[in-house]
This record gives sequence, C-alpha cells and structure tokens, in this order.
Amino acid sequence: MNHADWVRKELKELSKSLGFQYTPLEEIENRFTRIRTGMKKQEMDAFLVVQKMNFYYLSGTTQDGLLFVPLEGKPLLMIKRELERAKVESPIKDIILLKSNREIPSLIQTHSGKLPNSLGLELDILPVKDYFKHQEFFPATRFMDASLIMRETRRIKSPFEINLMSVAGEIGKKVYQEARKILKEGMTEIEFGGLLEATAKRYGHEGLLRVRSLNYEAYTWHVLSGLTGGIVSQSDSPMGGLGLSPAFPVGASQKAMKAHEPILVDFGTCYHGYQADETRMFSIGKMKQKFIDAYNACKEIHDTVLEETQPGADCEAIFLKTLRLAEKLGYKDSYLGPPGLQTRFVAHGIGMELNELPFIAQGQAYPLEKGMTFALEPKIVFPGEGSVGLENTVVVTETGYEILTPISQKIFQV
Amino acid sequence: MNHADWVRKELKELSKSLGFQYTPLEEIENRFTRIRTGMKKQEMDAFLVVQKMNFYYLSGTTQDGLLFVPLEGKPLLMIKRELERAKVESPIKDIILLKSNREIPSLIQTHSGKLPNSLGLELDILPVKDYFKHQEFFPATRFMDASLIMRETRRIKSPFEINLMSVAGEIGKKVYQEARKILKEGMTEIEFGGLLEATAKRYGHEGLLRVRSLNYEAYTWHVLSGLTGGIVSQSDSPMGGLGLSPAFPVGASQKAMKAHEPILVDFGTCYHGYQADETRMFSIGKMKQKFIDAYNACKEIHDTVLEETQPGADCEAIFLKTLRLAEKLGYKDSYLGPPGLQTRFVAHGIGMELNELPFIAQGQAYPLEKGMTFALEPKIVFPGEGSVGLENTVVVTETGYEILTPISQKIFQV
Repeated sequence: MNHADWVRKELKELSKSLGFQYTPLEEIENRFTRIRTGMKKQEMDAFLVVQKMNFYYLSGTTQDGLLFVPLEGKPLLMIKRELERAKVESPIKDIILLKSNREIPSLIQTHSGKLPNSLGLELDILPVKDYFKHQEFFPATRFMDASLIMRETRRIKSPFEINLMSVAGEIGKKVYQEARKILKEGMTEIEFGGLLEATAKRYGHEGLLRVRSLNYEAYTWHVLSGLTGGIVSQSDSPMGGLGLSPAFPVGASQKAMKAHEPILVDFGTCYHGYQADETRMFSIGKMKQKFIDAYNACKEIHDTVLEETQPGADCEAIFLKTLRLAEKLGYKDSYLGPPGLQTRFVAHGIGMELNELPFIAQGQAYPLEKGMTFALEPKIVFPGEGSVGLENTVVVTETGYEILTPISQKIFQV
Repeated sequence: MNHADWVRKELKELSKSLGFQYTPLEEIENRFTRIRTGMKKQEMDAFLVVQKMNFYYLSGTTQDGLLFVPLEGKPLLMIKRELERAKVESPIKDIILLKSNREIPSLIQTHSGKLPNSLGLELDILPVKDYFKHQEFFPATRFMDASLIMRETRRIKSPFEINLMSVAGEIGKKVYQEARKILKEGMTEIEFGGLLEATAKRYGHEGLLRVRSLNYEAYTWHVLSGLTGGIVSQSDSPMGGLGLSPAFPVGASQKAMKAHEPILVDFGTCYHGYQADETRMFSIGKMKQKFIDAYNACKEIHDTVLEETQPGADCEAIFLKTLRLAEKLGYKDSYLGPPGLQTRFVAHGIGMELNELPFIAQGQAYPLEKGMTFALEPKIVFPGEGSVGLENTVVVTETGYEILTPISQKIFQV
C-alpha cells in the first residue's frame, strides 16, 4: 500500500483507538493570540519556531519541521519529512513540505507575500550554526529573542493542559501504589527504578522527561537509598545520588537497598508531553527516627507553601518563609542540600519541561497566577547518611491550589 | 558529616565497589593530543568545551562546568557545583570552582597568563544566547567552530572506548536472551518495551541514549508490531512507529501484539556513556513468509556490508552497493522506508552519541578507518503491514571488523 494513502485513511482512527488526543484548533488559536500579544509589545513581525516543545505547543505536532508565525496573517507549518502525519496531528491549515532549509525564505515569501523585517528566534536554545544559517537566509531581517515570550505564555496553563498533567499525575499514583509490591530488601536501586518506570510506561508514561537546557538531562529513575541520598551531583537539586558511572552520575545506582534506610523515590511521569513530578519516601521496615522527623519537617514546609499558594502571592517571599521555617525546625544546614551546595528553590514550574516558570525561589520576586503549575519539593539531606523529601505537582486556582499528584503522603513502609 | 570530607574520603571507594570505571590519565592525554592536532591546523589558540559528551570525553567527568583547552599549556577544568566529586572523577590536575560564568575570563587569564586570540566553541550545539555571553566575556577574541575537530577526533575509538561499547553490547545480549521469556500474546508494545528497558537497567544500562541534536530524542523502547512497523515519523529512520501521543509519536504504542506479526525490537544500551545499538525480530508463532523473506534479504545486505568492511573501504560505495542488492532482491521500494520517505543511510556512527561519524550513506565518500564504530541496520518497510530489520554495532579492525553485539541472528520466535 502507498504510505501516504495509508496515513490519510487509517492513522487517525488507529491513533485515537490507542489513546491519542489531538490539540483542538481553539486551543491552538488561544495560544497564538497570547504569543502575538508578546510579539506586538516587542515589535516582532514574525516568529520562527523550531524547538520541539514550543513547536508542539503551537502546532499540535512534533513531526520534524519549522513553524512560521506572522504577527498578522496565517501561520505556516513547514514539515521536513512526514507531511501526511503532520496533517493528521495538527489543526493548522497551511501545512507544506520543506525539502531543504534553503527553501525557508521562499516558502515564507510565497505564503506571506513578503519577508519579515524583524524575526523572533528561540535564542535560549537555538544552536549558533543554525542562527548563522538564518542570517544567510534572511539577510535584511533583524533577529530578536523570542524565548521569553514563549516562557511567559507557557507559564499559564489552560484547562486542556491541566487535564493532561492530571492524567500524568494519575499515572504516577498508580506507580506508587504498585511500588510497594515491587520493593524488596537487597534489590538494587536501579532494578527498583527500572521496574517503576516499566510500570509507568504500561500506564501510558512516555518515558522521556524534558528540560530546557543544553546539558541537563531528566530521568525517572531517581531512587536513592541511605548514603547515596546524601550525594550531591551535577544537577541543580538537593541530592543527585550516585548514578551508574561518571557519564551518568545521578539517580539510581547498583547499590542494594537495605532495611531501615530512607529510600527516596523522585519519579516524574509524562502524558502527551505534559509532566507530573512527585517524590515519596519508602523504607523496608521502619526507618530511623532522625529521618522520620526530617520527613515530617518536609511535610510542614510543604504544607506551609500550600497555605500561601494563591494568585498574588510572591514567589520569593514564600521561599524565604520556608528558609525561616527550616531553620526554626532545626534543619538550617540540611534543608535543600548540605552547606555550600544548598539549592535556592523549593518549587520549579512544570508543564512540558521541568524548568518552566514559576520558581518559588530566591530572586524570583513575582506573583503566582491562576493556571501556574509547579512541583513543590522540600528536601533535607544528611551527607554520608541519606535524605528525605516530599514532592507534589500543584496548580494555582482562583482561590488557592489543587494537587495534581494525589498520592498518600505517608511513608511507604514494606 | 561535612559533605566535601565525605566525598574526599568515601566516594571513590563506594563508586568503584559499585562498578564505576574512571577514564585513565593516559587515555585523556591521548585525546588532548589528537584534539590539538586539529586545533593547530586551524590556528585555534584554545578550545572552550561545554557540551556534556565532549566535556566527558576530554575530562572524564560530567559534573557541571566548562573545560578550557589551550593549544599549549595545561587544560583548566572549571566546575560550577560539585567540585570535590569532579576531582574524584577527572584525572585532570587543574580543577577549580566556577562561582559564576562571569569569572570565566579571569580564571583563564590567571591560569594561562593571557586570553586566547582565537577560541574554538561547539557551534553545532551551543545556544545563541551563550555565544553572545562569550562575545561579552572575550571582546578581543575571534571565535571559531570546534565542532568538526571534536567529531573527527571522536570518530576513531580507542581500545578503552571499544571495551565500554562491548560491555554495552553484552548488556544488550542479556536483554534479548530474556526478552523471549517476557514476550506474551496480547501484551502491548509499550509494556514489552518497558520491561526490556527494566531488564537492561538491572544489567547496568544507563537509561538515556544520546543524540547530538537540538530536537532529536533517542529512546530504547522502539518496539513495533505489525502495522505500527509500517509507520514513518519524525525521526530520520526507515520506520518510526506510532508512539504514545502526538508529543511522542515514535516507538512503542499501546497496540497489543498479536500472533504471527513481525515484531521489530530496536534496542540501544548505554554503559559509561558508550552505546551499542541492535535490532532483532520477534514473533509469537511463525511470522508470514513475506516477512521472513524480507528479513533474510536484510541479513544478506547486512552480511554484504560486513564483507566490504575494512580500513580503506569507501562508505558511499558500500551504501550504493546495498541499494543495488536491495533492488536485485526485489525490495527497491521498501528498502529503508516507503517511496518518498526512504532514508539514505544503512549505518550510522555510534559511540557516546547515535549520530557520530561515519555514515555508510549517500554523499559520504570517505574511507573506513581502524577504530571506527557503526551501527549497521538494513531494514525493509511495508506500509500498513509491518517492517523487518537487523542491526549490529560493529568496530572496524586492522583487517576487517568485529561485531560488538553478538546476539543470535535468528528470529526470536515464542
């Protein structure tokens, strides 16, 4: 059978029968409206979207290509390879084949009748060599940075997006419920982590977690037991763990898990590109009182942040309040890491990437707004001994918050 | 306990007891020598290494930081966060804390006594905003692209690297041996893929596969059964599969696997950052003769490439030979994808990334050399029906080749 014919006739039905949800036209149009508000403020004639998650956000597809968004007029979706599949996935009307990057300016000229005077690019992530190419393609165009417009638009989630995140949270809930049956004394951290991930995938987790960064790699097998929980590593998090090698020095290791150790499981899940992030504590037999006390302190800090969570609350002020509380509770030198290596955030924005806005953190003096989503993760670290923590993904509502990861907050003891 | 003290006293022993191998000084020095040959040719005074895999290749650590490599004189490793761990992991002598990127020029000035006139950067992957920062930091310096020097150096693997790749291949072998016990009729592709990955992790697979690209994401759960094997997607591969959503439209789906379908399992493994990539066919009961015939054609193409594999053989010529053979065998319109979507490579270089040199491909007219490693993957695609293929990771030796993925090439029938 001809492949294009097959895609046109069969792909949509097959995909839907296997759980695919497509982004509705109205949702995409709302996003364009918001992006264009930002473009207009900066006098940006057009925006050329390349990075996969921005591209998905504005087109509904992740087929390889570029999206041209003029301030006025219709967007143009240029697809490099699987044009027919992009047409099934995206509600955008103008979708054409891009045989080579060299064609970009002529396709835009034909579509819009002119080339833009100013063009936004994602300078936070676009490789330099691609930028030089665009300078060749658009010799008379002034380039601008569109990354902040995207970050600011994407920081407020629509009900459509929040629903996808809550499905991701439901997947996480099932994983934690089954985890108790999987955990066995003597099992290695990585074996446990691998089985948790397999469980999550069975329920629809997409496997990859995404972070907007050149070098930062997210992963789901962040299982740290006893002393590996006290190890800091490359990532900007309170504890990185040992990992498996100098090439992957974070997350689960080949260490066998022992009775009475604190076992920290920080596990993110992804559904239709949208993530939920959560942390719970496990132990085989009862963990030492020191760790139970520290976990209860994390819960107190967690609940204090939630009490403050509502539109208008200042992110930095909330963070500073947690610092004072941690000190009062006796964890000044272990809250969010050991001295000298303490992180300076207690929550990170989350959506399609793990480092979205807002950050409840030092230096982030801006208000929470309705529709913001963040992963709240107070953690306490004891070098050479272990670490504890609690994490939930939360959405800011009209009057407060809602937890998208409704998992029991008790220690999962087996 | 103080974290730095703990790391200095305990980390190395713990890591080694759990399987960590550190890159020896001699290995790193050989790599510097080769990089500097390239730098000298281009009159590049120094190279500032940022991208994680280049950074690991030249420093032995992946702690967050930058590596300054002058053409003459000692390299300087600047670490942003976990200095003590970097000192354990890297054999480089000069390792210092980088508190803020603004310090980069002054640290280099102090270390080298001067700033470089010309500085190589990884322009193939460095974000534009970072490039602008470097322009600020080094106002009198001319920037050059160092990405080709890295690619060309990394294309020839040392015995140390080949050994790590062969361990990755051994992990893969164990996964395929156990896969037969895991596969059950009615199981979804993603459940099977998740369990294969959990098995691989138990044996030391690091979970992430890496590709040098802004948007291309590698993954191990490429399990395609029957008609999903006929689906093309974003990736530059003969078949992408259905995947789980428009946000992740590749690899395993929620489709249940049925008896007599061809089940293609393309599964990469990673050990100490080094990858092996392999594909085998599975079926529940015997698969249709059409697919068995096509698989035998893939084997014939695979073996023909291996017959040609030795230092001096031209990569493009080998590829063109496979095109002629595929046509002769009756697969002109299904070899490497359906018409219009056929890829133009039968092997990709592999090491720490899945798109290293060499490519046995159209337009790649250069000779194979001893120490090159590639993943050879002839595949045949029937839209609406399924696909078959075989893949092995291979190293070019003095007189021929060695297979690093020594798994049975029979169809795994359960």
